[in-house]
Amino acid sequence: MHYSPGINSLLPLFYVGWADSVLSPSEMKIIRQHVDAMDFLSFADKKQLIKWTDQSNPPSEETYKEWLADIHAGAMKLDLDKKLSLVQLGINIAKNTSKSDDNQIWDSPKVKASIEGLEMALGVDNQLSKVAFYTTIKPEDDTQIEDIAGFDTKKIQAILDGKFAEHKNRTKKLIMDPFFEIPYDLREKDALRNLILKQCKELGKQGFGALAFPEEYGGENSPGASTAVFETMALGNISLLIKFGVQFGLFGGAVLQLGTKKHHDKYLTETGSLGLAGCFAMTETGHGSNVRDLETTATYNPEDQTITIHSPTHTAGKEYIGNALHSKMAAVFTQLKVGEQNHGIHAILVPLRDEKHQELPGITVKDNGYKMGLNGVDNGRIWFDQVKVPVENLLDKYGGIDAEGNYQSSIKKESKRFFTMLGALVGGRVSVALGSNTAAKKALDIAIKYALKRRQFDSLNETTETLILDYPSHQKRLFPLVAKSYALSFALESLRDKFIEQYNHTDKREVETLAAGLKSYASWHATATIQECREACGGKGYLAENEFADLKADTDIFTTFEGDNHVLLQLVAKALLTDFKQEFNDGGFMAVARHVMKRVGTSVTDLNPITVRNTNAEHILSYDFLDSAFEFRQQKLLFTLSDRMRNFLKKKLHPSEIFLRVQNHMITLALAQVEQYIYKEFKAKVRAMPKDAEKDALETMLKTYSLDAILRDNGWFLENDFLTGEKSKAIRRVQNSLYRKIRPLAASYVDAFGIPKVLRRAEIVKEV
Amino acid sequence: MHYSPGINSLLPLFYVGWADSVLSPSEMKIIRQHVDAMDFLSFADKKQLIKWTDQSNPPSEETYKEWLADIHAGAMKLDLDKKLSLVQLGINIAKNTSKSDDNQIWDSPKVKASIEGLEMALGVDNQLSKVAFYTTIKPEDDTQIEDIAGFDTKKIQAILDGKFAEHKNRTKKLIMDPFFEIPYDLREKDALRNLILKQCKELGKQGFGALAFPEEYGGENSPGASTAVFETMALGNISLLIKFGVQFGLFGGAVLQLGTKKHHDKYLTETGSLGLAGCFAMTETGHGSNVRDLETTATYNPEDQTITIHSPTHTAGKEYIGNALHSKMAAVFTQLKVGEQNHGIHAILVPLRDEKHQELPGITVKDNGYKMGLNGVDNGRIWFDQVKVPVENLLDKYGGIDAEGNYQSSIKKESKRFFTMLGALVGGRVSVALGSNTAAKKALDIAIKYALKRRQFDSLNETTETLILDYPSHQKRLFPLVAKSYALSFALESLRDKFIEQYNHTDKREVETLAAGLKSYASWHATATIQECREACGGKGYLAENEFADLKADTDIFTTFEGDNHVLLQLVAKALLTDFKQEFNDGGFMAVARHVMKRVGTSVTDLNPITVRNTNAEHILSYDFLDSAFEFRQQKLLFTLSDRMRNFLKKKLHPSEIFLRVQNHMITLALAQVEQYIYKEFKAKVRAMPKDAEKDALETMLKTYSLDAILRDNGWFLENDFLTGEKSKAIRRVQNSLYRKIRPLAASYVDAFGIPKVLRRAEIVKEV
Ligand SMILES: Cc1cc2nc3c(=O)[nH]c(=O)nc-3n(C[C@H](O)[C@H](O)[C@H](O)COP(=O)(O)OP(=O)(O)OC[C@H]3O[C@@H](n4cnc5c(N)ncnc54)[C@H](O)[C@@H]3O)c2cc1C
Ligand SMILES: Cc1cc2nc3c(=O)[nH]c(=O)nc-3n(C[C@H](O)[C@H](O)[C@H](O)COP(=O)(O)OP(=O)(O)OC[C@H]3O[C@@H](n4cnc5c(N)ncnc54)[C@H](O)[C@@H]3O)c2cc1C
Repeated sequence: MHYSPGINSLLPLFYVGWADSVLSPSEMKIIRQHVDAMDFLSFADKKQLIKWTDQSNPPSEETYKEWLADIHAGAMKLDLDKKLSLVQLGINIAKNTSKSDDNQIWDSPKVKASIEGLEMALGVDNQLSKVAFYTTIKPEDDTQIEDIAGFDTKKIQAILDGKFAEHKNRTKKLIMDPFFEIPYDLREKDALRNLILKQCKELGKQGFGALAFPEEYGGENSPGASTAVFETMALGNISLLIKFGVQFGLFGGAVLQLGTKKHHDKYLTETGSLGLAGCFAMTETGHGSNVRDLETTATYNPEDQTITIHSPTHTAGKEYIGNALHSKMAAVFTQLKVGEQNHGIHAILVPLRDEKHQELPGITVKDNGYKMGLNGVDNGRIWFDQVKVPVENLLDKYGGIDAEGNYQSSIKKESKRFFTMLGALVGGRVSVALGSNTAAKKALDIAIKYALKRRQFDSLNETTETLILDYPSHQKRLFPLVAKSYALSFALESLRDKFIEQYNHTDKREVETLAAGLKSYASWHATATIQECREACGGKGYLAENEFADLKADTDIFTTFEGDNHVLLQLVAKALLTDFKQEFNDGGFMAVARHVMKRVGTSVTDLNPITVRNTNAEHILSYDFLDSAFEFRQQKLLFTLSDRMRNFLKKKLHPSEIFLRVQNHMITLALAQVEQYIYKEFKAKVRAMPKDAEKDALETMLKTYSLDAILRDNGWFLENDFLTGEKSKAIRRVQNSLYRKIRPLAASYVDAFGIPKVLRRAEIVKEV
Repeated sequence: MHYSPGINSLLPLFYVGWADSVLSPSEMKIIRQHVDAMDFLSFADKKQLIKWTDQSNPPSEETYKEWLADIHAGAMKLDLDKKLSLVQLGINIAKNTSKSDDNQIWDSPKVKASIEGLEMALGVDNQLSKVAFYTTIKPEDDTQIEDIAGFDTKKIQAILDGKFAEHKNRTKKLIMDPFFEIPYDLREKDALRNLILKQCKELGKQGFGALAFPEEYGGENSPGASTAVFETMALGNISLLIKFGVQFGLFGGAVLQLGTKKHHDKYLTETGSLGLAGCFAMTETGHGSNVRDLETTATYNPEDQTITIHSPTHTAGKEYIGNALHSKMAAVFTQLKVGEQNHGIHAILVPLRDEKHQELPGITVKDNGYKMGLNGVDNGRIWFDQVKVPVENLLDKYGGIDAEGNYQSSIKKESKRFFTMLGALVGGRVSVALGSNTAAKKALDIAIKYALKRRQFDSLNETTETLILDYPSHQKRLFPLVAKSYALSFALESLRDKFIEQYNHTDKREVETLAAGLKSYASWHATATIQECREACGGKGYLAENEFADLKADTDIFTTFEGDNHVLLQLVAKALLTDFKQEFNDGGFMAVARHVMKRVGTSVTDLNPITVRNTNAEHILSYDFLDSAFEFRQQKLLFTLSDRMRNFLKKKLHPSEIFLRVQNHMITLALAQVEQYIYKEFKAKVRAMPKDAEKDALETMLKTYSLDAILRDNGWFLENDFLTGEKSKAIRRVQNSLYRKIRPLAASYVDAFGIPKVLRRAEIVKEV
């Protein structure tokens, strides 16, 4: 032994720390600070250790060899049956080399915590490093670290399940029933659709369809519970999920939200049980994103108090309409004409078929045929040729025709009425956002579990090959996605809260904007995650029996329906600009600009050169830093956007021209806004928790999510001088250290998603 | 009119330039340089114009209004039936305001070129800007700009088609035949497989399967032509493509490349006509990427000169084997044991079925069932239970067993033999890279064509809605992908050249590495592009009839088979490190490091503060800048990688531990290497062209590709001080100006991919 016990306690860290790379000045500084604060070290120890942090005069080859020899010598005496962290290894060596009368100091939790502080700062708290020492001694089976529990998955699951745990459990129980199993080789659409219809009826029978309806119609008056059921059903077959959503959420939702008591009394109970199959006929071939300019007309006939529904052109036909082939009735969105005046978009219930399921006169329905996925859903096209319905069929909550044949509405402005009606339907968007995250979780559950079984290529351990989750590349592919699913869970929970809270408000702009942003973000997350997970499982991921095939194909459209993501994100940005203006009714544009400038300047206190350059891990993981990163980006993008628009306005450019010019800027701002929201909600949740292992586990997810968001956009942060190059690199190092922290807990993290084994149908991870 | 004709000629540019945003100092400088050089301006004109470039004292509101009034006044007198660029608008105004005796100067091409130079420098050469002027005058139908031909698509197509145009045409002609059509609703795998088999036989009959074989076996001895056929067939059904690849490329390739004359004589002719259906059985359930540790054994029996093939465990069974259900024979990759010794992986021909298509004794084949895509290919699992074959069935080009029962090989080292055998099969990887790019092109062709038909939301023009390709967000989504497909075309052409050139070499490391890198890059490009194109077509993109469904599902596995991308990229990086070492056999590691340092320092001369800050468009579009960006990144990543590895080695870390630690660094380096290669090949191609419209068109693609690559990685470039924040932003502006240049030519760019209408089966873009 060459050194004192104090130095020995830090040798593994120093060895690995130096081996890892060149030490940057700020790392040197932080090591020194840590060493200085360690009161279990003698003055001479400290002097020696600080000398070794001098980058300009690094420890010699000789010294390294001494370190290694001492570590090996120390390790020799240890119990090699269990693996130790670098910190514990150092402590044990120190203990073994201490005189027996002062060696109890090495059992002190304070000493351990203090060394761990340095480990974290150095970014060497990793599993891989350990292997290096041990293999020179004795090959080990490195699966053992799997056993580290770390936190209670049940507790985390309870946190993720939240208020609607009860409904989520009921849903799982139901869809776990073999009745809901869909064989992977059932590919023929008509057979599949029939099976899905049967299953959907069962959901109706069980009361799942009516949850959002008032009690008198068989429901629980709980829109929140209804979204929880949708969210959970995404663990099962996604065609069933969408069929369910169309029948109960879209069709039922239109009757409930846009109709009045007469409609509720007549249709809701039947709709909730799927006694009445209905569809939601908004989109036309010619108009998808631009609903306001739909071409279908509904003309009021005063002579017999009826309304004539008509598709004036071929492309005015409704398209992609879910349930079109099974429905008896459609909620048709049309331009409502009373006399000479067009009152804009309204929904009208139009019967499609008779008892024998024959199309009624004037109705033409065509199958949309095979799709990329969702082949269990009967999407179709519908044309109306002068179809007459009684005026009562107009869903008239926001606008109707009175006995005298006059149009009446509590909302005078047509555009406001339009947005109010759409806003009433926001539940669909909330549901798709939730379902997207469930789909992502399901994919991650499979990919992580597989990566903990699958071995490929020789490892240090000569008896088995490397677990693929031990490849840093694999960790980098999957862990940020796990963290994103965690982060989204909390943001979506708060979206659901707002949705419930504003359920009976007429003005739902807040929840609409939030839903637009989160639906876009969550659906892209699902698409990207399922793709990465498929690739992460190699050839196995491509087989239908392993679930990615359907999961990917069925959810692919989530980025498009319930609002195309690119269109939705522009709404988010427009809402921000509007809020912005409303804050300053009096001050005018320059006041706004000055105010924002000040906010950017003051709230983001970090923009001083020292903070910008601060590369130490503690700072990077601090809420101060993360708060300021998300705030700075959102504010600066908002300010520069409004500034550019103001410039264009001054030049008298046409407003639509201006929106085109700043379109990409708007989308970037919207995404920044969404990420900031997600961060804030997650942080609020974590901070409110008592200090325990679960808080710690969630905090790791929060930090991983945040650093990933910053790293994915580090070009922007660097461009805008929020980061220096050194700091950006340091963030990457800290992120890697978080991956190493997650690695042994990976299985627990996905277990906490609460996916029952029965629903984890993928053969590669099926437990027998 | 307030100004002289000279000033008038520049007014539209100044108006739009200032409206666009604040002018940066370097922009001011460049404007001044341009203005100074315009000899059609008087001294007073110049003075006035230069005054207007002063950022600290910008033109007043009054001045702007004067500009706008003059532009409108000038434009009034113009023929508004055709749209003019900003430059032409200015010139026409100047001409109208000149005295008639000096107005011929405005027709001079030199004057026009000089104003265009300024336009480009200002980044305002855009279509949208134009609209702003016109709408205030008279709404116009902005589809007209579609007509601008710009370049000859046939000429570009000829360049893209290259040497094998003839084979490509033949292939298109053949697969355009209705015989090769697959109905979109044929989803049942067995029926689909039978149809694909029938089609594949026809390809064999037509001689397409044997192209790579020597003439005596019905071929043309042209491996290049064979890849061109594969590349082109990706325009048709991808199941057929893969079935074709398995039968002729993999099975046929194994017989041809690993076998000797006796095998050729016996099997090649039959294989090329698909008289003998064969499969390529390399992958096992337990071993995919790690081929070297396959478990299947082949044990030589000296007593009867046979070999016994055996799957020792369930997971030693072959899996995903294409053609497994239709084949009579398999090329099985196994460990070859002769006596006590294992000679490593060898391929052996093993009969699977008898005449009646019954499995032979000891053979078990199971269907892999439905997959995400490629359901027309019969992938299956195969187990061998002590199956005996004659020793002649050993494909013994690189290693065989002589009459005395001794193992013989011209390559003594087992690992070298292994890599030589794998190298012989590189054609598959080359083909998949080519096919990937074709699939991406097909998706782009549909998405761009649709975006030129589809309108959504009101536009400036009040009679029609906006063409979605006129949304800057849509351009940003699609144009870089078009450019990437162009760029890849040239790189893949040069890969093909190298493949042909080294076809008979034993050491194919160069082409292998190149194929590994380009296959990874191209297959990810296909996956990402098809996804983006699907989303860009909204709901229509999701319908099977519009081709993305199958295109996406069928090509999804390209990132995994013929080598998993993450594994391949590590090979690329390892090859670079090896080259690196080989250059310095004597000098040792430090010499290498010093040398690289020097190279990074000198070759990348741009790292001086002035160049780093240079934000003007000409510089950003210059080859000097682009060369240095790609070179700097590749070199710096290589140097830092080798430096980190050297450090670890010094610390005596186990080599596999070192590879793990630098794994992500290696993957980053490999991608940088691939992009540099692509850039260089494209540039070489473009530079060699005579100056014409086609060169110009390709140059735009090259620049778009390059700037996109830099912008996607701008975080790295900023971290490493290759760019300043201002410059990174300037690059984005220049990139946007390139998009505006591409916009009117978008249809021509995809037409030049040469996709026959018949093969563009998507209903949304079908021409009637
Ligand atoms: C499987 C499926 C089920 C469906 N179910 C129903 C249903 O039950 N009932 C119903 O009414 N509808 C349904 N839809 C329709 C769906 O809501 C629409 O597809 C969606 O709203 C998008 O409209 P679109 O397809 O017309 O795309 P478009 O609006 O034409 O968009 C096409 C592309 O243009 C881009 N784009 C459009 N406008 C802009 C802009 N302003 N700025 C930038 N980019 C823009 C989009 O990003 C998109 O990429 C369904 C669709 C599918 C595929
Ligand atoms: C449709 C289809 C057709 C096929 N056809 C054939 C055929 O005809 N004949 C044939 O022999 N084979 C065939 N294959 C097999 C194919 O070549 C393999 O799937 C492929 O080689 C990958 O192997 P794997 O599936 O075992 O994945 P694995 O090697 O297990 O990889 C799984 C994951 O681990 C990661 N990983 C593995 N090693 C590392 C590492 N060192 N570093 C970082 N990450 C790593 C990979 O990136 C991947 O994400 C086919 C496969 C499919 C799906």
